[in-house]
Parts: sequence; structure tokens; C-alpha cells
Amino acid sequence: MLPGPTNVPNRVMNALLSPVINHRSTDFRELYKTITEKTKRVFQTESEIVLLTTSGTGAVEASVVNLIKKNDKVIIPVNGEFSTRLADLIDSWGGNSIRINAPFGQNPSFDQLEEAFEKNKDTKAVYAVYNETSTGTTIRYMDKIGELCGRYGSFFIADSVSILGGDDLPVDKWNIDICVTASQKALAAPPGVSPISINARTKKYMQNNPPPIMYLNLSRYFKYFDEHYETPFTPALPLFYAFNEALDIILEEGMEKRIKRHKICSDAFYSSLNTMGLTPFAAEDARSDVVIAVNYLKGMDDKQFRDLLANEFKVLVAGGFGNLKGKVFRIGNMGEVNRYHVMRTISSIASAINMCGLTVNPEAMSVALEKLKPL
Amino acid sequence: MLPGPTNVPNRVMNALLSPVINHRSTDFRELYKTITEKTKRVFQTESEIVLLTTSGTGAVEASVVNLIKKNDKVIIPVNGEFSTRLADLIDSWGGNSIRINAPFGQNPSFDQLEEAFEKNKDTKAVYAVYNETSTGTTIRYMDKIGELCGRYGSFFIADSVSILGGDDLPVDKWNIDICVTASQKALAAPPGVSPISINARTKKYMQNNPPPIMYLNLSRYFKYFDEHYETPFTPALPLFYAFNEALDIILEEGMEKRIKRHKICSDAFYSSLNTMGLTPFAAEDARSDVVIAVNYLKGMDDKQFRDLLANEFKVLVAGGFGNLKGKVFRIGNMGEVNRYHVMRTISSIASAINMCGLTVNPEAMSVALEKLKPL
Repeated sequence: MLPGPTNVPNRVMNALLSPVINHRSTDFRELYKTITEKTKRVFQTESEIVLLTTSGTGAVEASVVNLIKKNDKVIIPVNGEFSTRLADLIDSWGGNSIRINAPFGQNPSFDQLEEAFEKNKDTKAVYAVYNETSTGTTIRYMDKIGELCGRYGSFFIADSVSILGGDDLPVDKWNIDICVTASQKALAAPPGVSPISINARTKKYMQNNPPPIMYLNLSRYFKYFDEHYETPFTPALPLFYAFNEALDIILEEGMEKRIKRHKICSDAFYSSLNTMGLTPFAAEDARSDVVIAVNYLKGMDDKQFRDLLANEFKVLVAGGFGNLKGKVFRIGNMGEVNRYHVMRTISSIASAINMCGLTVNPEAMSVALEKLKPL
Repeated sequence: MLPGPTNVPNRVMNALLSPVINHRSTDFRELYKTITEKTKRVFQTESEIVLLTTSGTGAVEASVVNLIKKNDKVIIPVNGEFSTRLADLIDSWGGNSIRINAPFGQNPSFDQLEEAFEKNKDTKAVYAVYNETSTGTTIRYMDKIGELCGRYGSFFIADSVSILGGDDLPVDKWNIDICVTASQKALAAPPGVSPISINARTKKYMQNNPPPIMYLNLSRYFKYFDEHYETPFTPALPLFYAFNEALDIILEEGMEKRIKRHKICSDAFYSSLNTMGLTPFAAEDARSDVVIAVNYLKGMDDKQFRDLLANEFKVLVAGGFGNLKGKVFRIGNMGEVNRYHVMRTISSIASAINMCGLTVNPEAMSVALEKLKPL
């Protein structure tokens, strides 16, 4: 139940054993082409798809180094570890980040963003971390950022590493120029490959302004794909096979049903944890449905609690990041997550709290069961 | 029989199925630590090892962007596709490459390198592509470059992507500061992870001069390893397991025996191809023992020949790169390669040539068999 890497279905694991073929062969071209076509459907986009052999960070970085030039103004909401890191990267690469800060666990208001835009009409791009894994918050006005960028002609980049496949994200409808995710979160594939969507105008800009680097240079990926349906550098073939299988599972379920399943499980988690007396770290309007960050009760020790969960119940949850270390635990509600995972996690949490010497309201189980009924 | 990706033993493939664990757990730390210890033995080094989730190109780029600053002078022998690409990257990143050119298929002489050094005593680094995959040449004076760099205090970087594990490469003995390779060549693991060795003085330099990037920023890898035996970003876990198994196979055989096996197979290839009337593309003193580039005979068509090999004999060899397209074919003599692979490849080549309407000396088989006797 980690917020990534998440559980990988056996079908996907078994795909890892497909033969290691030549990446300059017809077989590979067909595989890569089908992956990009399926990924488009999952991203709800007509944009081009590039699949990088990197972690999500590598793909997020590709979205920066291919787009941002010296002194480019970039507006970015900052409210957690990953948005801070992204803003730092933009600055170290030579960009000029305009940070719209909010306390961890909250989002800046859309009005604050709009105001920053009014003051900086030459803003080149808005970067938004759609889901802040470190705090369990999701930005709920991505569509409005898209509109705003459209109005000013700025680029809109969505870091969707920990959310795509687990919550709504219609890339084209929301006017997202670049959308970045990774295999090992809500898409439930093994870690190591990261898909990015890039629309036509952004592709053109990148091709006309290539950065002085090689491995993350997206223009090279465009060229090899356009000419041969290949990657410019040797791809992590076993992970491509696995990702392809994970996409099949997603499309068989259907995106709408999949997102609804995540919401039902998230609702069950929040309601049941609330019944136990546990409060979410995130403000209500910013609460994530894929990463559930929970404040520890007084008397709960992070190490003791998570060790109990891991050793006695074989349930893994994550601790807090940075300043939140020891103050919260985080549940990944992603990918395969279903009735079984929610009930087992909830009951294990209740028992572990009891073992820590605190009591919880036993109705927490039936609250969860009730919420899970639609599944 | 491609010059990468090479055949992956079943033991290594099966390791891909190990469970996807948390990369911030004790289990992962133990895995990563053991991988780095085994990699040191394969590299014959006391240097630190970083394992990147990238292709070999990503790791080669890491050796550039972490070391080279604006206007740094870099001496580099250039005699093929990969050395050209590396020199181009050094320049585009802001360095100042001093290219010691040689015709494809040959190496510049060591004297030419030394002369360039005499004229540029402030040279920051020498980069050498130990094995040029595109032309089948190997630099046979790497030890002397190491001495030269030692004399002037310059850094020595060996791009050993297509050779490490298949030919001699005592990293410390040859005074190599950074050595880069990749999983899917002579180490016979699946593609997607690339190990780099970095010695203490180079690590210190990099930590004091971090580049404005994130994913390939080696200082981040040092920090996470020194503090926790972790990677800073999510690793491609299944490929880490597989690489670990591949290292076990290598160490069970022993490096000395492994390198000898490659040389015996290479000798069998060259001798037997010579008996058939086929000539190597590379000059004799530059000939690679891991990538065997062969000139086509008059009357042999690249596509027809390689299609015959692939379809009738299920043997894959590579074509030529760039200007050499249609003029040579290339055999990967790497990793698992043994009697069986050599004999099957040689006999298939002989038959395919016959099917192209040319005749070959039938003694080619017995010549190969004789050379393979020590195995």
C-alpha cells in the first residue's frame, strides 16, 4: 500500500520474461507503436507519446530541459517536496521560477495563480504537480490553469507522476501541453519507464530549440519515432513489455471505471479512518484520492506503528517526507487497489493502533464496507 | 549475435520476477550494496559504483555533465559513430573537444594523443571510447593514456559500454577515473541499467561542482548511497535483480576465464571468416574481440544476406552504421558467447553466402573448431 512502487499484477510481471529482441527490429517497432497508441488512450490525448527509460524524475526533468531557456518565467504552485524540487530544478537550469506558495497540505488558490499571471504576462510556462505525493494533496483546478495558459499562450506542464491512471486527467480537454507520469504508480507496472505526452506546438518548439544534452533530448526521440518507430537509445525492453501489459489491463477495465474504483476506495479510506479518529493531513478541498496522508494520533510512534503494520500484518505504508517525518503516514491508493486492499489495510491499521495501546471505534470496518458496496 | 542487446541467460531472466519491493527498505539497501560490491570486482576497482536507470548513453552523458565545465579542454580519439557522438556532446555541453581523428577502422596513434597533450597541457580530461561498436575497433593503449593523464593530472574517462566483461579492463591499474558501461552488452543482462565507477578524487570534484541538472547528477547518487545505500530516484527494480544475477554468473566463471573465452571465440571468428575469404573492417592492431565488423564480398547484398541469416538460420547480426551501411556486417562476440554460438554463426554465414550464389572455402568450419579447442 505504498504510494509507489505499487503492486504489479502477475500478468504484468510475467510479461517481463518476453524475449530480449533487437530494438532496431520490426518486432520492437510494433511493440513501441502499440504502447504509444494505448498510452494516448490512457492520457486521453492526441499528443505524441515518448517513453523514457528513467524514473519519473527523469521524465519531469525532460519536460524542463527541453522547454525552459535562460531567464524564462515559470509560474509554479509550491506546497510540498516534489513541487519544491521541481521549482529548484527550473531555477538551477536557468529559468526564473515564480513560486505560488501554500502551506503543506493545502493548495494555493486559483486566484493567486491568476494574479501572478496578471503581473507576469510574459510567463513562458506553468508547471503544476497535479498530485503532491509527499503531502497527499491534489490540485483541483487543473482545467482552469489550462484555460489560463490558453488565454496567454503559455505552456502548461502537468507533473502527473503519482496520479495518472488513478484520477481524472483528460490531457487535451484540460489544454495540457506536456503531461508526465511514471510506470510504477497508478499505472501498476514495474518502475523504470516513464511516459510523456507532448502536443504538436510544444514538439515544434522543442525541435527548433534543442537543449545541449543527449539522453533527455526529446527531439532525438521525435526523430527516431517519426522515422522508424524506434527510440534513439537502447530501451529497457523487459519494462516496455510489462508496461504494454499494464496498459492492456487498464484499457480492459476502462479509464472511467478505473477512476471511479479509485474514488470509491479513497472514500472508504477517508471515512473509515475518520471513524477511527484519525484525521487527514490535507485540507478537504485539496485531498488526494491516490495518496492518503494521515496525521498520527498523540501516542502513536511512526516507527513502532509502521513496523507493526509491516511485520504483523504484512502491510506497507510510507512515512512522512522531510518536515513531516514522524508526523504522518501515507497510504498509496493506486493501481490494483480494490475492496480487499482497503479492508485489509483498514483492519490492520485498527489492530496496530490497538497494539500501540490506543483504542479505535470498531465501527470503522462497517463504515468502510458500506462505502465499498458499489465495487 | 548482435553487438547488444546480447543473449540473456535464463537465470538472469528469471530474476526479473523477484518481488517489486520498496526502494526505501532494508531489502533494497542490501540488494544495491551487493550489486555495487560485485560490480567493483568486475571493474577491478576500488572506486565507487553508481547504477543508473538509463541506457549506456545516459551513463556516458553523466560522465560528461558532472565533470566538464564551460571551455574545458577535452582530448578524445574519434574514429566512429560513438566517439563522434561523444565529442559532439562534450562540445554542445560547453566543453572544447580536441579531436584526434583517425579513419574509421583504425585508431589514432598514441603518439598523436601525446602530442596533443604537449600542445594542451591544461587539458582537463581525456575521453576514450575503448571499443567502437560501430566499426569493431578497440583502443589497445588504454593503459598508456592512463599513465599520460596521471603525469598531467588530467581525468581519464573510459566509455566501455560495449566491452566491459568481454575484454581486459583493470580500471584502477589503468588509472581510469570514470569507467562507464551498460548491462546489455558483454555483461549479458537485460538493457536499462548502466553502472559507472568514479574514483575518490573525481567524486570530490563532482561534489564540489554539481551540474544544474537532477536525474544524471551523480552527487545526488553519492549522497543517497553514502547515507542509506539507496538511489536518489526510483530504480528499475526488476533490472537491478537481473543485473545482480548476471554479476553472479560473471564472478562464478571468473573474469580471467571469461575474457579468455571471448578471445578464443574472437580468434575462431576472425580465422574462420578469413578462410572464407571475408576480411575484417578494422586494421589488425585495432581489431575488437567483442564486435567483429566484416566487409561484404562483392556480390553480397546487406539486406539479402542478413535476411537469410535471420529467417533461414535464426541468427541475427547487425548491419553497418552511417557511412558503413551496406558495406559491413557486425557480429557481437559478447556475454554468453561460446563454441555453440561461434560454430552456429560461422556455419550459417557460410550457408547464407552459398545461398547468395558465392562459394566459400569449406575448411572454414574446421579452422574454427581447431581454434575453439581450448574451450
